[in-house]
Amino acid sequence: MTNQYPDDSLALHTDAYQLSMMQTYFLEGIHERQAVFEMYFRKMPFENGYAIFAGLERVLDYLNGLHFSATDIAYLRESGEFDPSFIDYLENWRFKGTVRAPREGEPVFNNEPILQVEGNVFDAQLIETPLLNIVNYQTLIATKAARIRTVVGNQGLLEFGTRRAQEMDAALWGTRAAYIGGFDATSNVRAGKLFNIPISGTHAHSLVQTYRSDYEAFKAYAETHRDVVFLVDTYDTLHSGVPAAIRVAKEFGDKINFQGVRIDSGDMAYLSKGVRHMLDDAGFPDAKIYASNDLDEETITSLKRQDAKIDVWGIGTKLITAYDQPALGGVYKVVSIENDKGEMVDTIKISGSAEKISTPGKKQVWRITSNKDGKSQGDYIALSDEDPRDLPEGLYMFHPNYPYLNKTVKDYTARPILHDVVVDGEVVYESPAVKEIRQYSHEALHALWPEYRRDLNPQEYPVDLSKKAWDNKMALIDDIRAYVKELSSENEDLEKY
Amino acid sequence: MTNQYPDDSLALHTDAYQLSMMQTYFLEGIHERQAVFEMYFRKMPFENGYAIFAGLERVLDYLNGLHFSATDIAYLRESGEFDPSFIDYLENWRFKGTVRAPREGEPVFNNEPILQVEGNVFDAQLIETPLLNIVNYQTLIATKAARIRTVVGNQGLLEFGTRRAQEMDAALWGTRAAYIGGFDATSNVRAGKLFNIPISGTHAHSLVQTYRSDYEAFKAYAETHRDVVFLVDTYDTLHSGVPAAIRVAKEFGDKINFQGVRIDSGDMAYLSKGVRHMLDDAGFPDAKIYASNDLDEETITSLKRQDAKIDVWGIGTKLITAYDQPALGGVYKVVSIENDKGEMVDTIKISGSAEKISTPGKKQVWRITSNKDGKSQGDYIALSDEDPRDLPEGLYMFHPNYPYLNKTVKDYTARPILHDVVVDGEVVYESPAVKEIRQYSHEALHALWPEYRRDLNPQEYPVDLSKKAWDNKMALIDDIRAYVKELSSENEDLEKY
Repeated sequence: MTNQYPDDSLALHTDAYQLSMMQTYFLEGIHERQAVFEMYFRKMPFENGYAIFAGLERVLDYLNGLHFSATDIAYLRESGEFDPSFIDYLENWRFKGTVRAPREGEPVFNNEPILQVEGNVFDAQLIETPLLNIVNYQTLIATKAARIRTVVGNQGLLEFGTRRAQEMDAALWGTRAAYIGGFDATSNVRAGKLFNIPISGTHAHSLVQTYRSDYEAFKAYAETHRDVVFLVDTYDTLHSGVPAAIRVAKEFGDKINFQGVRIDSGDMAYLSKGVRHMLDDAGFPDAKIYASNDLDEETITSLKRQDAKIDVWGIGTKLITAYDQPALGGVYKVVSIENDKGEMVDTIKISGSAEKISTPGKKQVWRITSNKDGKSQGDYIALSDEDPRDLPEGLYMFHPNYPYLNKTVKDYTARPILHDVVVDGEVVYESPAVKEIRQYSHEALHALWPEYRRDLNPQEYPVDLSKKAWDNKMALIDDIRAYVKELSSENEDLEKY
Repeated sequence: MTNQYPDDSLALHTDAYQLSMMQTYFLEGIHERQAVFEMYFRKMPFENGYAIFAGLERVLDYLNGLHFSATDIAYLRESGEFDPSFIDYLENWRFKGTVRAPREGEPVFNNEPILQVEGNVFDAQLIETPLLNIVNYQTLIATKAARIRTVVGNQGLLEFGTRRAQEMDAALWGTRAAYIGGFDATSNVRAGKLFNIPISGTHAHSLVQTYRSDYEAFKAYAETHRDVVFLVDTYDTLHSGVPAAIRVAKEFGDKINFQGVRIDSGDMAYLSKGVRHMLDDAGFPDAKIYASNDLDEETITSLKRQDAKIDVWGIGTKLITAYDQPALGGVYKVVSIENDKGEMVDTIKISGSAEKISTPGKKQVWRITSNKDGKSQGDYIALSDEDPRDLPEGLYMFHPNYPYLNKTVKDYTARPILHDVVVDGEVVYESPAVKEIRQYSHEALHALWPEYRRDLNPQEYPVDLSKKAWDNKMALIDDIRAYVKELSSENEDLEKY
């Protein structure tokens, strides 16, 4: 192979500009200044009412023992792009920051921090890119999976996307995210091995082509497996595939567990009804019909509306690539940074569009639940020195862009969403088994009113700022405006542009 | 971490049904039957006129030394899903097949084989899923990159997508594919290390926020780097960012190489014109304007139409996820298989829609070039025992779906596209350096008429079947129809469905 160096480290899995900035901080002697960065996304993916946070285990894998390998250092030196003293410093560098995150599987919302990194500005910059890379994708897929689960109800739901995934990591971590979002099993055996996710899969058209006959192929399969699902659409579903499946199921009787048949092409509504009749008439009312053919939540909904007789859904491309929106636009912004007097000062990124202005200050997200019905009232984003629990006068919540939308919540529980997962560079959180994460996600999602969980045009879930966080943001916007105005008067000759 | 087994092998990076079928073949004693499988895609991605083949190096990486690790075997045994004698066999299994592929960077087209696997049916099934996973994604991204290169012309083109890529492999291998497709550099430092791709990147908004001033941040950056590009839109592009950049560039003079400024938000047409005036007026006519903000071939074309003064384009999300079509639908079909008499027999997959019917037989793709102008006349798909070179009467080419579209080509060169890359399990091909692949791709693409390279509504490139391959396909379709008809008469009671 032509790799010039072995792929023995993820420390360089980052954007070049992170290293460029780190070099500036190092050479200017401010690389140990403390900073707080937060990751959030501005718009809900798929115009959904919630997102499902995923990617934490991979983030911790990445951070655990993170350092620059000898080959990383050799490459940086050879590139000629960086200062030798900076590269020397990287050689013994270790991540020393603190990271806070929601539990995997937690429902999260736009414009609230879903990762928080506190540490020196040097460390926080390096890890920006991989953290976004991981969490953007896995959160996207867990959310897509949860949407599909919503329309499927309690039916079987299988992840079949590996061949269309965007390379191997997407197949592996994507199917883990899909399982967290509510899928039952995956076709990816490596994911089964690593994460203990149930695996699923029977045979392809090529088996039938090898035996040149549905009947001969199904018979060979039945002779060599206990649990069988026959793929019936290689030559002709109703005239060849299903009759052969029934014949083999009858011939083998109790020697096999005839679970059903799979259809992978043709009109799923029409075919599934025909197949259902045939299976019922033949005395197999419990045999299930599996369908797989470019399905997603929309086509499933449409097929169900036509009363398609499908029991188990195999979902590939549309899930594993999040086909209708293949990226979550999560960003990572500095919200507070130490100044040259050693004080932490909140900071803001200004933009022409209101939604793009970041919210300054180190924050916590509190999920506010009514004690009466256990349902969420909204999320309350407060500065980290605030505690909204047990306020005797109730909690005043208002919309950060439309403050006249407000309410006072009484008899509530406030649950913090961000937890320490890495403290001073040490991973302190052990991920639960993925099955537990999946169960947690299901329960946390059902603590939301169904209006927020609707797949089309859901109600907007309230994500409110505390009064203190809101006042802080407004004050900083005023500061920046004054600064820009001052600069403008200095540069008056620019008006011509 | 909660992984039950270490991630020490890619052998299980496949669909469960491959293992299920392999178990059937093994237990039925036909696992050493020879077969030929071919990968192809049915529709051009992005309705483009060509695709750029990519992924070969990763395929060879995967195949080289492929075997089941001890933990793979332990997992399979523990799962209880497979027969112990089959698992025993896997323990000592090695891939023994032969693989043929185009050169990386080769323009390829729909409905022609872009991978061919010849070997026993057992081996060929296992590797189906990872080969599709790799080649579908990398070919998609190389093609997207080539489209973007077409509209950008000779301007600078940088890949910035890691944070929005679908997990880490997509960022790494995607940026390699983008480089093959014509990008100049990447922000991903790990890709720089592994593949010797040029890396690019200066600083982010956070640098300016850290110094609380464009001027102070740029000054610090200039003190610590030789080549500088300043990001000017943190507070106000025209009133703060650009004046600060000019001030620093003047103050530092020859101490830095002031390459230009980058704009990452706001209206790119309006801002770039203002910035251009300011840079020119300040005596920096050679300073370049970099733009990055959700760009793709459409927005670039539109900005150029408005005469935006942008010199270098940074492309992220829309490239690395192939946002407008995030999956290439490549499939892998058996085209020939040994029967129980030891003879190779061609095989077909029938479907209700004409485009979905596979083309039987082991094939070669020949690129037919006119000796007069060196331009491609089309691709000619022939059975592997045919040789269309040096036919004195010329080469008769016709459209496989519309045979009345035909021509006879004289004075031509026929170049085979598929080459041996793995023979009897041994990798025999060494990938060139990625820079050479990129150069090859550029040249091969420009051997196509510009009509096929247009980004919108290109002319359809001819992909023709040889008469022998076409006759073979028609004969097999007739065979299958007769078979289904016979079954239908056996199952006449099905007509009610």
